Amino acid sequence: MTQHAPLSSRITQINGGGSDGWDHFRRARAMKESGAPVIELTIGEHDIRTAAPILQDMHRAAKAGHTGYADIPGIPILRETVARRMAENTGVPTTPDNILITPGGQFGLFAAHLAACDEGDRALYIDPYYATYPGTIRSVGAVPVPVQAKPEFGFQPQIRDLEAAVEGARSLMINSPNNPTGAVYSPATMDGIAGLCQAHDLWLISDEVYDTQVWDGEHITPRALPGMLERTLVVGSLSKSHAMTGSRIGWVCGPEPVIACLEDLTTHSTYGLPGYIQEAAVFALNQGPAFEADIADPFKRRRQITMELLAGQNAVKASPSQGAMYALLDIRATGLSGEDYAARLLDDELIAVMPGESFGAAAAGHVRVAFTIEDAVFRDAMTRLLAHAGALST
Amino acid sequence: MTQHAPLSSRITQINGGGSDGWDHFRRARAMKESGAPVIELTIGEHDIRTAAPILQDMHRAAKAGHTGYADIPGIPILRETVARRMAENTGVPTTPDNILITPGGQFGLFAAHLAACDEGDRALYIDPYYATYPGTIRSVGAVPVPVQAKPEFGFQPQIRDLEAAVEGARSLMINSPNNPTGAVYSPATMDGIAGLCQAHDLWLISDEVYDTQVWDGEHITPRALPGMLERTLVVGSLSKSHAMTGSRIGWVCGPEPVIACLEDLTTHSTYGLPGYIQEAAVFALNQGPAFEADIADPFKRRRQITMELLAGQNAVKASPSQGAMYALLDIRATGLSGEDYAARLLDDELIAVMPGESFGAAAAGHVRVAFTIEDAVFRDAMTRLLAHAGALST
Repeated sequence: MTQHAPLSSRITQINGGGSDGWDHFRRARAMKESGAPVIELTIGEHDIRTAAPILQDMHRAAKAGHTGYADIPGIPILRETVARRMAENTGVPTTPDNILITPGGQFGLFAAHLAACDEGDRALYIDPYYATYPGTIRSVGAVPVPVQAKPEFGFQPQIRDLEAAVEGARSLMINSPNNPTGAVYSPATMDGIAGLCQAHDLWLISDEVYDTQVWDGEHITPRALPGMLERTLVVGSLSKSHAMTGSRIGWVCGPEPVIACLEDLTTHSTYGLPGYIQEAAVFALNQGPAFEADIADPFKRRRQITMELLAGQNAVKASPSQGAMYALLDIRATGLSGEDYAARLLDDELIAVMPGESFGAAAAGHVRVAFTIEDAVFRDAMTRLLAHAGALST
Repeated sequence: MTQHAPLSSRITQINGGGSDGWDHFRRARAMKESGAPVIELTIGEHDIRTAAPILQDMHRAAKAGHTGYADIPGIPILRETVARRMAENTGVPTTPDNILITPGGQFGLFAAHLAACDEGDRALYIDPYYATYPGTIRSVGAVPVPVQAKPEFGFQPQIRDLEAAVEGARSLMINSPNNPTGAVYSPATMDGIAGLCQAHDLWLISDEVYDTQVWDGEHITPRALPGMLERTLVVGSLSKSHAMTGSRIGWVCGPEPVIACLEDLTTHSTYGLPGYIQEAAVFALNQGPAFEADIADPFKRRRQITMELLAGQNAVKASPSQGAMYALLDIRATGLSGEDYAARLLDDELIAVMPGESFGAAAAGHVRVAFTIEDAVFRDAMTRLLAHAGALST
């Protein structure tokens, strides 16, 4: 007997069936909660909280009465501030009408796919991928099509692999700097992607939430490339750049008529964001690049620690680690899968890392380390991890 | 030449084409902004701001560090608090697993329709309706089907009219107490709706955001009726009950497996809500029914003023005005449409009301008055409105 009326096929298929690969994360969390001194290198969340002055400004705005409905596409001053920063950082002229404020980058990804894809359309994305990507595509009724970016190419997607999957696709989602690989897409990769999108009339959905965390090379936004302005939707956020993950505030930047359509979607879904959070976002962005560098600095230091320690051994191979708050470590010399190795490491050393398989087939035989704990503890955990992997390797 | 890559048909059709009926509102707002002393009786937003102690508690939670990612379906204490209030108010056993916290009631309506309807499915709703209803249905790719609830039936939907439209439908959305009509659905109406939903295996999406504003009769939640627990999704919110419109916090209450599916959608769209807003919502709900009555009281007083003034004249007929913060006035004796009358009233008296036609065909020849300005000014504006309508009537 059914427990409820019939559901849509879309809502029941968001997870795609099977394990989501996060069982390991939940096991580590449960061990920690029952008292085991587990070191967590799992989550992409800062080990600091949102800065007090930003919270003070939020409270000021709330007390001043900005507690009613706010402008649906975002308050004008925030749209202006985001547009100006986008123009300054990328050199591409950008107006407030190019910007829709969203409750976090994740809603930007959802909205962008809803704009690009109709029911049953194919939507490409790069594997390894951030955990929500395939489910985001399924949530709007489209069909997720992964294209592998392999370790032997430094996790840069190869255009021939994209060409092989592009038939019938309406969009391609990329993420550079990349979670989980740490890759920053090269000029050649970006040019190839731009050419592919133009040749096949694709939307390029560019998740750039790690754009303030680049350690090696340069962040290129594809929106700045010739012919891409009218087919790129950039998704940005204050989560990673300003340690405001919980405040759920981000944006989509794209062509004006598309932003107008996304405003319609916003009216009929989230109905805008709290005005006091938007005012705090303006305050945060006005702190400028030095503040953003301060927020990124701990990850820069721990990435440096990782590179030093990797240089002193041979068992574990370095991932590119050019950007973002992660290193994807190649542990294939242990003879174990990422999942099995992560389980061994948790049992033997009480260190929790994410199995590469959680992020897609191309990350098999890897584990992801997040740079999200204090430097000395991080150094000790990484040292033990490498020794542990070394002992298992032949 | 196109300005951008092709968009999905869904995103371009959200507004359904044509005027959205809010041109009048925008004209009044523009007149006010250029200095004319326009009295606005247009918007469903309190003339007070969110209470200072709620904002203080929010700031306390933020300073205490609740600024990182919060539990995706809602923090446990808030889900518990909403479930307990639901159980107490309706007598229906309700657990935290029946509750998904959403960024406002509007996102609850969007998510509920995404759960109920696949692409192209018919979704019923009652006309007159809140402005976002048809666009919400179109946003998830379903087909909005209005069913008129007519003034001669006190704006109670008639089951035979629903029966005539039900073929192929997957859901029915209702709103009692109702915006814009002020109707509170009678036991007979609710029983009829429950029978229809069971006979045709429909989801009932019950928008109950005005449940603390009942002036005449009693609010019935259809979730409490026999056989309806497994096919009702109740959408609630703190916007109207706690004057927290801008904080964008509400919920969906439904069967556990459906809430689990909606959690999947949340993971892939909004990724949860700010923890500090959720803590403030717990604080607000813990103020109890007396606080909620205080928030509703100004609307109760102004509804009473409206009834008194209507009793002293014959030109304008009273709407039911049994609940919510509005009265829908029948101005057909003036010989004008709602749109034409609203325009005349704005030009002659500098009073802005919403044309009934903005809310659907069944509200033609009516105007909606919102009880959202200070009592004495409200009384004066209503007095002038009735005299003005009287002078135009034969």
